[in-house]
Amino acid sequence: MTARSRSHWAWGFVDAFPSEEARESLGTQIAFLLGGQAPPRLPLPSLEAARVPAAKLDAPERLRDFTSSAREDRIAHTYGRGYRDLVRGFRGDFSAAPDLVAHPRNEEDIQVLFDECARLDAVLVPYGGGTSVVGGVEYAGRPRPVVSMDLGHLRRVLEVDPVSRLARIEAGARGPDLEAQLHTHGFTLRCFPQSFEQSTLGGWLATRAGGHFATVYTHVDDLLASVRMLTPSGPFETRRLPASGAGPDPNRLVLGSEGTLGVITEAWMRVFPRPTFRASANVSFREFRAAVDAARAVAQSGLHPSNCRVLDPREALLNGVSADGSSVLLLAFESADHDLSTWIERALVLATRAGGACPEGPRVRRGGATGRGEGGEGESWREAFLRGPYLQSALVSMGIVVDTFETACTWDRFEALHAEVKNTLRAAFEAMGERGLVSCRFTHVYPDGPAPYYTFAVRGGEGDALERWAILKNAASEALLRMGATITHHHAVGRTHRPFYERERPAPFGAVLRATKVTLDPHGILNPGVLID
Amino acid sequence: MTARSRSHWAWGFVDAFPSEEARESLGTQIAFLLGGQAPPRLPLPSLEAARVPAAKLDAPERLRDFTSSAREDRIAHTYGRGYRDLVRGFRGDFSAAPDLVAHPRNEEDIQVLFDECARLDAVLVPYGGGTSVVGGVEYAGRPRPVVSMDLGHLRRVLEVDPVSRLARIEAGARGPDLEAQLHTHGFTLRCFPQSFEQSTLGGWLATRAGGHFATVYTHVDDLLASVRMLTPSGPFETRRLPASGAGPDPNRLVLGSEGTLGVITEAWMRVFPRPTFRASANVSFREFRAAVDAARAVAQSGLHPSNCRVLDPREALLNGVSADGSSVLLLAFESADHDLSTWIERALVLATRAGGACPEGPRVRRGGATGRGEGGEGESWREAFLRGPYLQSALVSMGIVVDTFETACTWDRFEALHAEVKNTLRAAFEAMGERGLVSCRFTHVYPDGPAPYYTFAVRGGEGDALERWAILKNAASEALLRMGATITHHHAVGRTHRPFYERERPAPFGAVLRATKVTLDPHGILNPGVLID
Repeated sequence: MTARSRSHWAWGFVDAFPSEEARESLGTQIAFLLGGQAPPRLPLPSLEAARVPAAKLDAPERLRDFTSSAREDRIAHTYGRGYRDLVRGFRGDFSAAPDLVAHPRNEEDIQVLFDECARLDAVLVPYGGGTSVVGGVEYAGRPRPVVSMDLGHLRRVLEVDPVSRLARIEAGARGPDLEAQLHTHGFTLRCFPQSFEQSTLGGWLATRAGGHFATVYTHVDDLLASVRMLTPSGPFETRRLPASGAGPDPNRLVLGSEGTLGVITEAWMRVFPRPTFRASANVSFREFRAAVDAARAVAQSGLHPSNCRVLDPREALLNGVSADGSSVLLLAFESADHDLSTWIERALVLATRAGGACPEGPRVRRGGATGRGEGGEGESWREAFLRGPYLQSALVSMGIVVDTFETACTWDRFEALHAEVKNTLRAAFEAMGERGLVSCRFTHVYPDGPAPYYTFAVRGGEGDALERWAILKNAASEALLRMGATITHHHAVGRTHRPFYERERPAPFGAVLRATKVTLDPHGILNPGVLID
Repeated sequence: MTARSRSHWAWGFVDAFPSEEARESLGTQIAFLLGGQAPPRLPLPSLEAARVPAAKLDAPERLRDFTSSAREDRIAHTYGRGYRDLVRGFRGDFSAAPDLVAHPRNEEDIQVLFDECARLDAVLVPYGGGTSVVGGVEYAGRPRPVVSMDLGHLRRVLEVDPVSRLARIEAGARGPDLEAQLHTHGFTLRCFPQSFEQSTLGGWLATRAGGHFATVYTHVDDLLASVRMLTPSGPFETRRLPASGAGPDPNRLVLGSEGTLGVITEAWMRVFPRPTFRASANVSFREFRAAVDAARAVAQSGLHPSNCRVLDPREALLNGVSADGSSVLLLAFESADHDLSTWIERALVLATRAGGACPEGPRVRRGGATGRGEGGEGESWREAFLRGPYLQSALVSMGIVVDTFETACTWDRFEALHAEVKNTLRAAFEAMGERGLVSCRFTHVYPDGPAPYYTFAVRGGEGDALERWAILKNAASEALLRMGATITHHHAVGRTHRPFYERERPAPFGAVLRATKVTLDPHGILNPGVLID
């Protein structure tokens, strides 16, 4: 599809990495937020200087045709794109590199990988877009040899059922690629996680990615009709059905299995005609709490907006939505069927009743052809949104500790949770002698609660930035669990969240997952250390 | 709550069983449909004449305070309310009666039951409302002694969180009881399966009951925030969260577990304020196919109606909606927040575009106080709907073979499925030398497919009516599987559907369920024979 090369250490494409001018401007902005002078713009690391251990495994005969132990391939498959990954990559530390990278061309190749890894007692790590922020693709539990399995060859939209609005898509298809293929049929999947540019359908399903819609279809779970997952104990394939009530839902065992139970190879996904009607409004609030109340009123109204995103004053500033200290509620509706004036007008009544102001009124677009991309507010937000990970990488290249974490809780607990998260992080900043930054937005809302998303940043300091990050990440995670929230709404568990996940899940469910693992992956080759031990 | 006594053999309350006049009228109606003369009104069976084997188990000391081996109690807990159950009860055949009936007062009693059943190698069958239509509460695998565990004492709404719109409800609460308790808080759960009058929250969750809403909240699954299930390996309790993305969803293992993995004792459920705005319309179609197209258009529109129910000409006639051979699409919207004129008007545009007629236009009610019950079209449909099981019992008392089955399939497959189901049943009727009746409605619709619900009836004939039923039920089930549909959308698996469920589910998922069973219920005491062997 594209020959653009991906950075060996940073987010995304090399040619899209922020320019020197952009880094300079970003440095000025972050200094304004964190106090003090602009951080140094460190020289970007070269691929040549990366340190990679010798591979511990020669490709067995049966794997030769579709595996590689090339240095660049091993580097490219070492890490995900969490903060720790970026820092280690930036430092040229690729000590966790896999010994072999497999590029299976079909299901037969995957079966051969199962067999050979079992024979060699090797670890097999499924790799989609390599965008995990929770250590989902990095196996550090040496001395077993490690094979990274990149599903990039499985990238086709195989079949479209326009009557049922379903598409059968291979798991290795990346976001833009699968959308481009669906567009030729007049459809869109509308699953736009922030990793969209690089991540894959299989990765979304395995990690229960959060999508585009703020309500109803919040996780990719809700877009799945059926799935095919290869396991060492045979193919696990569900029926193509709109719904079933026959026993516990087998799709739900695959969703969130994070490569530990099998390898998703394809799925029937629910697709949409591209929206032609849109309505949106930005509503300002003097008090964050009032914006939260407004979001709750809309979430409980049954209006089902596609966007219902609260930005606290920091987020509103950073996203260029408001610079006067207001909190903002971004509301949007979209449809391929009907005008949305009634919907946005009612949502605005609810938001203004909660204390919001929208002097310019709603923006409504009624039908007609779609322009480049899909145009409209939705797209400009999305473009800025998808740019986020590039900025994080640029900040890492200036020594800034910057990361995000997210959760969900019930409405009655949000205020206390929010105070606890902010106080916990500010106390940690203070102990470091730093100002630090913490901001909050909602990515999704439910009738019973929001999914808050936090960004934090602090200078790296004199010592190891990774130590500072570990202190902050741990403090935040403890605060989430303490306040009854979840360790993740859509970033998955991986290896980073596992200790917290183990405390969150019902104890007998841990035993069930272990029994399930033994049943489906009796040799324990698939992504050990993720979800369970 | 009520001292109304329940029939020992028929659906529901004794005082609500159709009168002789009603039976006569029903007999005339069924004769019109099946041809020939009105069926005989057989004398109703007496409790005294019921045949019950001697109990094989004396209550051990630790169970005495809350168990009973009274004849009436054992009879009341022998069967669910499927066609086979009604026939056997009508005949006075209670050979499958449990040896002991437990009425646990709290979780401690349930724990004692686990311990004692493991010690005695007894089977423990959780019993909610006893309304299973798939043999879910009947253990026939002698010679193990059987304890039926009736959860009726756990019936309270324990807590309401009005901010998050959640209520913590004990699993043994029956529909009308839990609704009455919620109403005092201004809320409603709006889970109205056809068994509503008798069935319980725990039963709904364990069997993934289909609720009131035709879209979005179609199964009780969608109303569950968190659940507590006692298992012999310890309590399985999920966090009270609007959503999480941490690993496979543990709630989804409980939903559909049908009493085989543990006993649900309570759950946090998503509740709604009682609707004050309503809009509805009945749309007529000359062709059933056009009504199906209209339902699809509405299901794919994003309008999210609360009702979107297609009735074929037979169903429209039986439900008194239309007598001229039309198919009818029942559309309804409800809200506690906003006027629904825009919604119903757009839905009507879609329905009429597909060929429908609605000369009287939509009925819209805008806000205001709710009257008795909740009034409106929704309620009158619901009252007739909830009356259905009484009519089935009355027909059984006239020797008619009458049952329902339901499924779901994608829209592209519906036409072929529908033809296959009708042709299969008609061929079976013909082989019996009977006219027979088969009708179809949709209970729920999804963007990717409908949930069709079939009713069939035929005279019992000279031989055993249960044999006729088995032939028809088996033929219908085979047709569902053959055409790629599911064996059940919301009637559960139980013992009746198990052979078909085993063919439908992914083979490795069967192995996972067995491993899960061994993990949570190592002595195999809980409801053996349901879902897995």
